[in-house]
Amino acid sequence: MQMVCLDLEGVLVPEIWHAVAAETGIQELRKTTRDVADYDALMRHRIEVMADHAIDLPRLRAVAASLQPYPGARAFLDHLREAHQVTILSDTFYELSDPLFAALGRPAVFCHHLETSADLRVVGWRKRIDDHKRRAVEGFTALGFEVVAVGDSYNDIPMLDAATRAFLFRAPRQIREERSDLVALSEYSELLELTCTRRTTDR
Amino acid sequence: MQMVCLDLEGVLVPEIWHAVAAETGIQELRKTTRDVADYDALMRHRIEVMADHAIDLPRLRAVAASLQPYPGARAFLDHLREAHQVTILSDTFYELSDPLFAALGRPAVFCHHLETSADLRVVGWRKRIDDHKRRAVEGFTALGFEVVAVGDSYNDIPMLDAATRAFLFRAPRQIREERSDLVALSEYSELLELTCTRRTTDR
Repeated sequence: MQMVCLDLEGVLVPEIWHAVAAETGIQELRKTTRDVADYDALMRHRIEVMADHAIDLPRLRAVAASLQPYPGARAFLDHLREAHQVTILSDTFYELSDPLFAALGRPAVFCHHLETSADLRVVGWRKRIDDHKRRAVEGFTALGFEVVAVGDSYNDIPMLDAATRAFLFRAPRQIREERSDLVALSEYSELLELTCTRRTTDR
Repeated sequence: MQMVCLDLEGVLVPEIWHAVAAETGIQELRKTTRDVADYDALMRHRIEVMADHAIDLPRLRAVAASLQPYPGARAFLDHLREAHQVTILSDTFYELSDPLFAALGRPAVFCHHLETSADLRVVGWRKRIDDHKRRAVEGFTALGFEVVAVGDSYNDIPMLDAATRAFLFRAPRQIREERSDLVALSEYSELLELTCTRRTTDR
């Protein structure tokens, strides 16, 4: 029995902020942790831009609700959850991405919170804890799990490095080149096969 | 967003070993952690009794597969998972109780492993870690969750005491009297209402 820790955006669902940018026509909102390494700076920027354009939480959430998981993602998760424990470790927000969690069959998700004003403007965010992906992997390890981590982006690197086994999935070329020590995959079938390989012998 | 940690047997599903005893006619297998506080002693006894009566894992698992969650348990879990993170913390075994996890919609489950011989006799068990329920609650707390714990038995007390809020659910009178400081409930609707009360104000 392994704990498989999966990133969300880019791995199971499209980048939500890319969709927000497309729907609102505000290109500044396209930036993600792939573009800006400093998450707090990225969020401050997003909140300023949303305030300038009067984008509120219901509008953000409608974009998330309009998205579908990648083809095959739900079936992959369902298979994985029959053999292993699964937790999605993401830097998204419960209040924004809930429609996608429902579409994925309500897997366990550790992510952050958005804070809103009385009229539902986004005014802030509350991080779970600093470096929560890495610390979740360490926490599961301390609870007796062998942890397999899967991610595609810079913010996934600490969790990948903390896990017993780690895979890049549909990662940009730059990350694949920088971390050529990690196995890089692009199909759910490969991921399912490799995460389940040790099923009979794992701890 | 809270993490709700639920015991399994007695809370969401019937006592599996009671059903094993009924199906096999071996009364010695009725004993649970409600009867024997020392879990290791209880498991050693179960394995001896199963060896004496040639009860193997497929037969155990068929009993688990014949059980249904308590009426309302699946709907309760589904509602709870829309509002909160949920993890079942149980002293059962993945290899035994998997049919019930499927019937409950594959929530996150932390429990133990059974070890079997080549001919599928149960020859041992591997605990996740010592005191895993309490340590999981502490782990979730360290990851930034407010933890609500729900249990019915002596082996739940350490997790109840470690949680931010705790409820006894359908607990025997003796435990309710010994721990009269804990709110004792018997209906899923009460549990749903009380676990979700702080939804808008929790951390």
